[in-house]
Amino acid sequence: MTGRNKPRSAAEQVSDLTAGRLSVYLRCLTTLDAAGVKTISSRSLAERFHLNAAQIRKDLAYFGEFGVRGVGYYVADLKTHLRAILGLEKPVRVGIIGAGNLGRALADYQGFRVEGFHIVALFDTEPNRIGHPSRQGVPVRHVDDFTRMAAAQELDIVVIAVPEPAAQGVVNLAVESGIRAILNFSPGALQVPGGVKLKNVDLTVSLESLSFFLARGEQHVPGET
Amino acid sequence: MTGRNKPRSAAEQVSDLTAGRLSVYLRCLTTLDAAGVKTISSRSLAERFHLNAAQIRKDLAYFGEFGVRGVGYYVADLKTHLRAILGLEKPVRVGIIGAGNLGRALADYQGFRVEGFHIVALFDTEPNRIGHPSRQGVPVRHVDDFTRMAAAQELDIVVIAVPEPAAQGVVNLAVESGIRAILNFSPGALQVPGGVKLKNVDLTVSLESLSFFLARGEQHVPGET
Repeated sequence: MTGRNKPRSAAEQVSDLTAGRLSVYLRCLTTLDAAGVKTISSRSLAERFHLNAAQIRKDLAYFGEFGVRGVGYYVADLKTHLRAILGLEKPVRVGIIGAGNLGRALADYQGFRVEGFHIVALFDTEPNRIGHPSRQGVPVRHVDDFTRMAAAQELDIVVIAVPEPAAQGVVNLAVESGIRAILNFSPGALQVPGGVKLKNVDLTVSLESLSFFLARGEQHVPGET
Repeated sequence: MTGRNKPRSAAEQVSDLTAGRLSVYLRCLTTLDAAGVKTISSRSLAERFHLNAAQIRKDLAYFGEFGVRGVGYYVADLKTHLRAILGLEKPVRVGIIGAGNLGRALADYQGFRVEGFHIVALFDTEPNRIGHPSRQGVPVRHVDDFTRMAAAQELDIVVIAVPEPAAQGVVNLAVESGIRAILNFSPGALQVPGGVKLKNVDLTVSLESLSFFLARGEQHVPGET
C-alpha cells in the first residue's frame, strides 16, 4: 500500500517493516510466556513460528544485547523490552472517528485491549449515533468535541473510519488537534504534514490483490526496481 | 506484515505490490471517469493523485500498450482494462467466516460492493448468530454448511474473522473446500499449502507500528538487507 501518498523515505519504510516484525516477535513471546517457556533460542523461535532466525538476531541486536550465549533469550525479559520498544509500557490511548459499522467493530475489537490499546471514544456527526455507546461501552461523541477530548483524554492515535469524502477533513482536524499518528481505513490518498505518521489499511486493495491472484494464477509479474 | 508466514518468493511479493498499485490506479480512473475526464497523461495522473509517473508507465506497459502518444490514456478504456487485469470483470464472490462484530462490519462495508465484490454469506458456529442476517441482509450460516455453500455459491475468496485459536481450523476447511484466496484478519501465523494465496491484515500490528513511531519519534531505524 505504498505509493498512495507522498513519497516515503527508505528509512520510514524500513522502520515500518521493523516495527511489524517486532510486533510479531512480541506476540510469539506472549504465547511462549503464557505456556511457561522461560528461555528460547532464535533458532527455536524461528522454527516454532515460521520466522527467520538470522533476521530475529539482527532485529533484536539493533535494540540492545538481549541474547545470552548458550541460553538464547529470556522470554519474560525480552517481552518486557519489546513492549517498551513498541511504546506499549503504558496503555496507548486511541480515538476512532466514524461510528458506523467498521468504527464500532474496531472499538469493540478485543485484540486491541489485550495488546494494551485503550479505545477511549468514538466520534461522529450523525445525531442518531451520538450518545449511543458501542456494545462494549465505548462512548460516541460529536466530532465537534474532538479537539477538546483529544487534549483532555491525551489521545495518542486516531483511527479514521469515515466515508472517503469526509476523510481528509477529519485527518486535518486530528492533525490540528495535535495527533501525530493516524491509522486510516478510508480509501483514497490522504495528505499529512511532516512529523505525522499516516498508516493506510485499504481493505478493497487487499481483496483486489486476491482477485488479481485468482485472475492470473501463479504467473510471474515483474516490474519492481 | 511479511515474515509472519513461510518465506514468500520475490515474485509473489512483487506481484502484491503491483496489484496494490493497479488497485490505486483503478480507483483514480474511476474518480476521473465520474468527473467526466476523457483522457489523462501519466504525468497528470501522477500529479493529481500523488503517484509516480514513471512507475505508472512501467506498470501499465507490462500489461499492454494502453498509452497513446500525445494523448495519454483513455480513461474509460484503461479503467475497463484494469478491471479485467484485476479479475473484476464479473462480481467476485466472497464468504466471511466469523459473524462477530468485525465479520458483520466487513459484510456490510459498502466499499466492497462498489468495487464489485459480492459478499454471499457469513459463517459461524454460535447458535445465536446463525439465521440472523447482517444489517445489510447478508445471511449467517453454520460453518458446517461451508463446503456445500462454497461449491453451490461458487465462492472465490474467503475472509477469516474468527478468534485466533479457531483460525487455522477454518483456513484448513476453506482450503479443503477448494478456496484458493484467503484474506485473514486473525492474528498469528497461519499455514496454507502452495497454490493458495493468504493475505494477512493484522490490525494490532498496524497500531503497534504507530505506537513504535510515537515512542521513537523520527529516529532512523536501520536493519533491512
